Amino acid sequence: MNIQPIVYPERENWASLLARPMMNAASLFDIVHPILHRIREEKDDALIDFTQRFDGVKLDSLRVGEAEFEAARSLVPKSLKAAIRQAKANIMAFHEAQHEPLVEVETMAGVRCWRKSVAIQKVGLYIPGGTAPLFSTILMLGVPAVVAGCKEIVMCSPPDKNGQIHPAMLYTAELLGIKTFIKAGGAQAIAAMAYGTESVPGVFKIFGPGNQYVTAAKQLVSQEGIAIDMPAGPSELAVVADASANPDFVAADLLSQAEHGTDSQVLLVTTHEPLLEQVQQSVGKQLEVLPRKEIAAKALANSRMILLKNQEEVVEMINAYAPEHLILAVADDEFLAAQITDAGSVFLGHYTPESAGDYASGTNHTLPTNGHARAYSGVSLDSFVKKITFQKLTPEGIRNLGPTVEVMADGEELTAHERAVSVRLQYLG
Amino acid sequence: MNIQPIVYPERENWASLLARPMMNAASLFDIVHPILHRIREEKDDALIDFTQRFDGVKLDSLRVGEAEFEAARSLVPKSLKAAIRQAKANIMAFHEAQHEPLVEVETMAGVRCWRKSVAIQKVGLYIPGGTAPLFSTILMLGVPAVVAGCKEIVMCSPPDKNGQIHPAMLYTAELLGIKTFIKAGGAQAIAAMAYGTESVPGVFKIFGPGNQYVTAAKQLVSQEGIAIDMPAGPSELAVVADASANPDFVAADLLSQAEHGTDSQVLLVTTHEPLLEQVQQSVGKQLEVLPRKEIAAKALANSRMILLKNQEEVVEMINAYAPEHLILAVADDEFLAAQITDAGSVFLGHYTPESAGDYASGTNHTLPTNGHARAYSGVSLDSFVKKITFQKLTPEGIRNLGPTVEVMADGEELTAHERAVSVRLQYLG
Repeated sequence: MNIQPIVYPERENWASLLARPMMNAASLFDIVHPILHRIREEKDDALIDFTQRFDGVKLDSLRVGEAEFEAARSLVPKSLKAAIRQAKANIMAFHEAQHEPLVEVETMAGVRCWRKSVAIQKVGLYIPGGTAPLFSTILMLGVPAVVAGCKEIVMCSPPDKNGQIHPAMLYTAELLGIKTFIKAGGAQAIAAMAYGTESVPGVFKIFGPGNQYVTAAKQLVSQEGIAIDMPAGPSELAVVADASANPDFVAADLLSQAEHGTDSQVLLVTTHEPLLEQVQQSVGKQLEVLPRKEIAAKALANSRMILLKNQEEVVEMINAYAPEHLILAVADDEFLAAQITDAGSVFLGHYTPESAGDYASGTNHTLPTNGHARAYSGVSLDSFVKKITFQKLTPEGIRNLGPTVEVMADGEELTAHERAVSVRLQYLG
Repeated sequence: MNIQPIVYPERENWASLLARPMMNAASLFDIVHPILHRIREEKDDALIDFTQRFDGVKLDSLRVGEAEFEAARSLVPKSLKAAIRQAKANIMAFHEAQHEPLVEVETMAGVRCWRKSVAIQKVGLYIPGGTAPLFSTILMLGVPAVVAGCKEIVMCSPPDKNGQIHPAMLYTAELLGIKTFIKAGGAQAIAAMAYGTESVPGVFKIFGPGNQYVTAAKQLVSQEGIAIDMPAGPSELAVVADASANPDFVAADLLSQAEHGTDSQVLLVTTHEPLLEQVQQSVGKQLEVLPRKEIAAKALANSRMILLKNQEEVVEMINAYAPEHLILAVADDEFLAAQITDAGSVFLGHYTPESAGDYASGTNHTLPTNGHARAYSGVSLDSFVKKITFQKLTPEGIRNLGPTVEVMADGEELTAHERAVSVRLQYLG
C-alpha cells in the first residue's frame, strides 16, 4: 500500500490532481423510479414487500414499538450510554448557540421589517443500516431537529434479518424524544417519508446519508418539491501538515478517513518534504492492525500526498479542492484557518482529530462532500428552520415609502403594483 | 371576470382547493439538455449563436462595455434613479442586519467549537428579459451578494433586438458595483454561468427567476453540483381579511399579484361573508383601468375566495397552503402572524401592500412558491454564504473528550476513528 506522492505539481495539473471520481446517478434513476411509484400507490403494503425483498425480513409492524424501546434501554452497555449522553450534551450546546435572535429593522420611519426562524414542521431522518449501528448519525440529525422544534420527526432505518433495530440506535433516538421510528431502508424508506403511507407520516424535508439508491431517491423526490439536506458524495479529508506535525497523528487521521469506504478520498498537502516519507511509513505500520484494513488500503490507493512550494500554494489548493473535512496540523493553525474560504469543517492544531467532530465535540458531521463546500454548508440548526420575513407599514410608513414603490412599479410597467400603493395613499389623503 | 367564491368548504376538500397547477419539467429537459451540452463544448461561439437564434441579435461582444454603463447613467430619469437608490438603501439595511456574529462555544474544557459565515466566492445572478426592465430583481439578488462579500458576481440578462440591455438595469447593476454583465438569456445563460466560457466566469451558485427553460436549465445544472437558489414556480398571494379590511385595498392587492402572469395564484380567505361580494365588485372596477387586464383576468379566473367558519380554520388553511406572499388585512394582525408557520413573506395590517416588499421596504422578493415555503426560506444573506464550522482541542480538551469518542467509535466498529484519538492520548501519556 502506498499513497501516491506528487512533488511540486505544475499549476495546470492541479485540476486533474484534485478531481473527484465521477458519479453517474442517471442509471440509478431507472431502478429507483419504480420503487418510488409503488410506494406512492401501495403505501405500507409495498413498504413491507420491499423490506422482505431487500432486508430479508417480513415485518408485521413497520413501527418500532414501546417494548422494543424498553428492551433497548437495558441492552446498551453503561459506558456507551454515558458516551452518547456526553456527545448529545456537546452537540446540543453547539446547535443551541445557533438560534438566531429575531432581527428587526425600521428601514424608514413607519416601515418595520423583521425575520423570524420557524421550525420546518415535519422532517424525516434517514439512518443507514449495515454492520454497525450509526447512533452518531441519529445524534447529528436528531439534535438540531429537536433544538429547532420540528413538530413531527420521523426516523427510518432498515431492520436486521430478525426485524430488529440495533438497541444503541433505539436508545439514542429515545434519548432525543424521537419515538416515530420506522423499520424501513433504501429508496423505499425515502419514498415513504416523501409521500406518506399509513404508518409513515409524510414530511417536508428529508435528511441523512445512504447508499447510491437512497441518494438517487432523495434526488428524485427533491425534483418533486420535497427538500433534502444536501447532495451526497463519498466522504473525504484533506490534511495540511508542516514540520511541527506528528507523522503518527497525521497517518492515524488519514486512516480514520480511509476506513469509511473504498471510495473515500484522502489528501495530504505539505511544504515539508520529509513528512511524505514519514507519514507513508506510519500509515503502513498503523494499517496492519486495523480490522477494516482492506477497505482503507483501497481508499489510500486512490489518495495523494502533495508537496507544494509555499503556504500561498497550500491555501490556494485547499480552497480549490473544497474538502469536506480539513485538518490543519501546522504551527500557525489559526492564521491558516483564517484564509480558508472553501471547506465543510476545519480541525485546528495537533490535538484535534476529525473523529472528535465525527462523534462528540459538538459540531455536526453531516457536511458537504464532492466540492459542494464551495456553495453548501453542513447541516446545522439552519437546516431545520425556514426564515420567514415580516413587514408592517404604518400610515406614516406608506407615506414615506409609497412614492418610491410607485416610481419603481411604473418603471417596470406593473400598474397594479403601483395602484396597490396609490389606492392607500389616496385614502389617507 | 369572477373570482370563484367557496363557502364553508368541508375539510376533505381543502387539499384539492389548495392544489397548485402541476408543472411538468421532464419534457423541457429534452429541449434544454442539448443547449447545455453545446455551451459546455463550444462556449462563447455557442452563446453568440443561441443569442442570435433566440434573441434575434448577432453580438460582437457578450459583455456590457464601459461606454454602455456610462450612457445608461444619463438615460435613466432622475426620479427613477432616486427611487432605486432609496430601495437599495432599505434592502441594504435589512440584509446587513442578517450578518451572523461568529458563534463560539466551549463545549467541554479545552474543546472550542465555532462557526463562521464565509461568502460563496463566485455567484451568478440571472435577470429575465421581456418588455419591462427588472431592475428590482437586480437589487434583490445583487444587494445580498454584495453584502455577503462574494468575490465574483456575474450577471446575465438577454439583450433586446438591438443588442442592448435596458439603461435602468445597467444603472442599477453599476450602483451595486456589478460590472460583469453578460448579454445572454435563457438556458444558454444558465449553462454559461455553470460551466464558464471565454467571456463568462463559471460560478458555484446560480440565482434568479426565469421562464420554463431557465428553470429547467437550473434544475439540470443543480444535479451536476452547481447550487441554485430554490425551486421555481408561479408567483402567488394569499390575503386574510376581516371586517376591518378595506375591500378596495384587498382588491388592489389581489390584482397586483394577478398581473404578474396568467399562471399567478390568488387566494382570499375570510370569516366575514360580506367581504366576498365587496371585493368581487372592487376587483371588477379596478381591473378595467389596468393595462395588463387580460393577464390579470385570466389569473383571477383560476383564483378563489374562501369563506371559513373561524380564525382557527383560517390559520390551519394558510399553513396548509404555505403561500409565497401572505397579507394579513385584519385587526389583530400581530396575533395572527404569530401563528403562521408556513409562508414566504408576511405583510401585516391595512397599509402594507405586497408591492412594498416587491420593491423597496427592505425585505427580499425572491421567495419560495408552490408550497416550498414549508421547507425553504426566501433569498437572504444566508443564500450567499456558507457557514463553515471550526474546532480546536487543547491537550486538556482531547483528554476530556477523547474517551467519549473512543467508546462511540468502538460502538460503531470504526477502529481507525478510535485510534486517531488513542494515538494522541498515548503520546500525551
